[in-house]
Amino acid sequence: MDDLRWPKEAFIHPEGENKEEVRQLAESIMDKVLDYASSVTEYPPLPKESDFEIPSISGEGVSNRELIHQIQELIDCSMNPNHPRYIGHMDSIPTFVSCLGELVSTFLNNNMLSLEMSPFLSRLEVHVLEVIGQMFGYNEQAGGVMVSGGTLANLEALAVARNQAFSVMENGLTEIKGKPVIFASDVCHASIQKACMLLGLGTSAVISVKTNDHSKLDVHDLELQIERAYDQGKRPFAIVATAGTTVTGNIDPIFDISQLADKYQLWLHVDAAYGGALVFSDLERHRLKGIAQADSITFNPQKWMYIAKTCAMVLFKDRQVLEGDFRISAPYMNEVAFTNLGEINVQGTRHADIVKLWLSLQYIGLNGYQQLIDQGYRFTKIFTEEVRKRSFLVLQAEPETNICCFRGEPAYLPKEKWDDWNRELQQQLLDASHTFVSLPLYRGERWLRAVLLNPFTSRSQIQDIFKQVDIFYDHYLESK
Amino acid sequence: MDDLRWPKEAFIHPEGENKEEVRQLAESIMDKVLDYASSVTEYPPLPKESDFEIPSISGEGVSNRELIHQIQELIDCSMNPNHPRYIGHMDSIPTFVSCLGELVSTFLNNNMLSLEMSPFLSRLEVHVLEVIGQMFGYNEQAGGVMVSGGTLANLEALAVARNQAFSVMENGLTEIKGKPVIFASDVCHASIQKACMLLGLGTSAVISVKTNDHSKLDVHDLELQIERAYDQGKRPFAIVATAGTTVTGNIDPIFDISQLADKYQLWLHVDAAYGGALVFSDLERHRLKGIAQADSITFNPQKWMYIAKTCAMVLFKDRQVLEGDFRISAPYMNEVAFTNLGEINVQGTRHADIVKLWLSLQYIGLNGYQQLIDQGYRFTKIFTEEVRKRSFLVLQAEPETNICCFRGEPAYLPKEKWDDWNRELQQQLLDASHTFVSLPLYRGERWLRAVLLNPFTSRSQIQDIFKQVDIFYDHYLESK
Repeated sequence: MDDLRWPKEAFIHPEGENKEEVRQLAESIMDKVLDYASSVTEYPPLPKESDFEIPSISGEGVSNRELIHQIQELIDCSMNPNHPRYIGHMDSIPTFVSCLGELVSTFLNNNMLSLEMSPFLSRLEVHVLEVIGQMFGYNEQAGGVMVSGGTLANLEALAVARNQAFSVMENGLTEIKGKPVIFASDVCHASIQKACMLLGLGTSAVISVKTNDHSKLDVHDLELQIERAYDQGKRPFAIVATAGTTVTGNIDPIFDISQLADKYQLWLHVDAAYGGALVFSDLERHRLKGIAQADSITFNPQKWMYIAKTCAMVLFKDRQVLEGDFRISAPYMNEVAFTNLGEINVQGTRHADIVKLWLSLQYIGLNGYQQLIDQGYRFTKIFTEEVRKRSFLVLQAEPETNICCFRGEPAYLPKEKWDDWNRELQQQLLDASHTFVSLPLYRGERWLRAVLLNPFTSRSQIQDIFKQVDIFYDHYLESK
Repeated sequence: MDDLRWPKEAFIHPEGENKEEVRQLAESIMDKVLDYASSVTEYPPLPKESDFEIPSISGEGVSNRELIHQIQELIDCSMNPNHPRYIGHMDSIPTFVSCLGELVSTFLNNNMLSLEMSPFLSRLEVHVLEVIGQMFGYNEQAGGVMVSGGTLANLEALAVARNQAFSVMENGLTEIKGKPVIFASDVCHASIQKACMLLGLGTSAVISVKTNDHSKLDVHDLELQIERAYDQGKRPFAIVATAGTTVTGNIDPIFDISQLADKYQLWLHVDAAYGGALVFSDLERHRLKGIAQADSITFNPQKWMYIAKTCAMVLFKDRQVLEGDFRISAPYMNEVAFTNLGEINVQGTRHADIVKLWLSLQYIGLNGYQQLIDQGYRFTKIFTEEVRKRSFLVLQAEPETNICCFRGEPAYLPKEKWDDWNRELQQQLLDASHTFVSLPLYRGERWLRAVLLNPFTSRSQIQDIFKQVDIFYDHYLESK
């Protein structure tokens, strides 16, 4: 090999010439992240506005010492979802093994594009997705692919549904008579609109179905909307049910929806990005009743399965639809009996997210996951009881997962001041007790949203949060 | 906190209660990957067909010891792109710092969806992409987003081009009169067809432009095709130029294409997934002449910049088009002056690929990258000279990057046997000397393709490969 012309530890020498140096650098950086992860309560859930400046990229490269310093600054300026009082979003503390699994897959740098480039990992992905499909009630005909996030999972599912309904893979939509439409509840995830925009259907292709007071799709309105669409000459082709809505975590009545999908011969997609994890709990699985009837399912282990981002998948009841209604082959690829995963995926070259999922499943085990999910329900119940105890608080919806969405409507203030009150309470919780709840705008009002996802959030911490709420409530007018 | 009900090291305790145990497990796994990465020449570039069975997922979870054992088996069964004789694909040995950067971003688990969820990293991504945009000749109006792979980058670029040309974000394509079409060379990447399929344009929306003997787009044919499309009532809206074709690494004449894009008022997208790295070399940057005129550029640091997968981006000359012709807002997101990156990205929740890119740029420095690229050219020249020395070998194209595509056409065999000869040579190189070159089917024939990407591939290794080629050539008939 020629003389090294770049920093000595830029690459690991293939025969170990710099093994000691790289080990030292690796240990220093591993120490930084382990120190952070082992003391996350010393970091606030969200960083203070910081004066960290982005250093310009140097010609010569920085020293090991400076590199480590910059990594520490990066940690200091980041969101801290590992904090047990970070209960604001579906961003979870990652399983330790998923972080280490990511390290393994990064060093291996295999490419999920083709079997040749990931001979074991491509097969592993197919296998694990079959197993998970069976947990959803699918049979051995099912299968799917992993994608980098739930938005891509929904995109792929709706692309397949569209291609199957209208045979437009080759010629596109411009010759189609009548407007293709889908139905989804008025609180479905924004990625459904995004998918329809990308797919050339336009955001107006998503027909909104009413939801009830608990953010659950109204099946009666769904049928009305389907009938109306046909009357207007539109061309319905799919229904999206949501299992775990973004703001309140509620679950659409999947079984009833599946009956309508059957009746009208529409593709049923279940966006179970969040709620899909319930198949791992014997106690809670029933909430997804009917999901086995779905033609496709989105499920993101990066949320309630605690896998480091990204880790998401789209499953199909019939794996063959990917071959017939989606596959784009690359002419330069070698043909093998195994379908290269890049040909049946919205992505091509892809990182091996399967490693961190598989190792976490192996290590934590099915029982461990069941306990994690069941614990989330216990803490949500405790949290929700605290909300109910206070007459100045209202629940947005009856919790069905581990999300509690509530807000203050204090009688001592006129209605038009309530949003401000909740905004100030959110900030007060963050400042006074390092508790982060999010503040979604929902149906025109500000709500406080707690996602009881972190396994280290405790009963006493929840009680403490409500002490802070009470203090805020009691002293609000005085402080003005 | 309740009693632990899952393995003790499933999560790092937020206050360090299991710090020593997790450190031990982390060190064991780090040792495995460092041992692998420091002795990659002991692993073949591609694994032997293995009898490794996928263990079923257990209820109880496996021990630390078993976990580490399974990681070793996984390493043993994987593709080994770190081997200096793995010269078959654009899959590079990852920079050491990109692996460690991935570790950092995984533990932090920030979400590139919104500024709230990645307060520093969202800003860092915007900054670094502006800097890289300027290296391509863009001004401060430019910007872009990172996406999980080049296929998504091409998809986003063409989505924006389509939305801008036809104003179809809301209403979709079914009302459009005339077929929207784009132009790309007959050797463009399959992701262009995939993008058109996804976008509802259909794969037939890609009009193939002839290429010359060196896989470069024929500008004269491009103009003919554009004129013909208008004559047929089609609606051209974009041209895709390729900078670094998949099989031969050649670069379309971007400047001449940009003149036609101007003349016909078409969006110019440059798929510089591979060749974009040339902006880091003073010596080679000129090969991308005209790229500053492009409306959008795909660039994948996951290839020639040696960043672990995935790391890709799409850049736009005018960042405002993302706001006007692509942005889908989530109603529950808080509005801030900074546009949340999830709203202007085909993805939503997203992993922080910026960390490994930024740390690698910082550590290796601009000069280090320049030297890496220039070294690739030197070795390609050496490799190509060896091909030219042999009358039984032919070059597919004049190399313009670090790819040499060639094949044997031995006079002692009839033409119809040449494909088999090359296939057998590929296998022989792998078996006898752990050399992996790929075997693409290109224009109906099998070729051997060497990507001189690994910085540890040496002159003597190249000479050794050709010794093997000569031995194979000399003894081929005897062995039959």
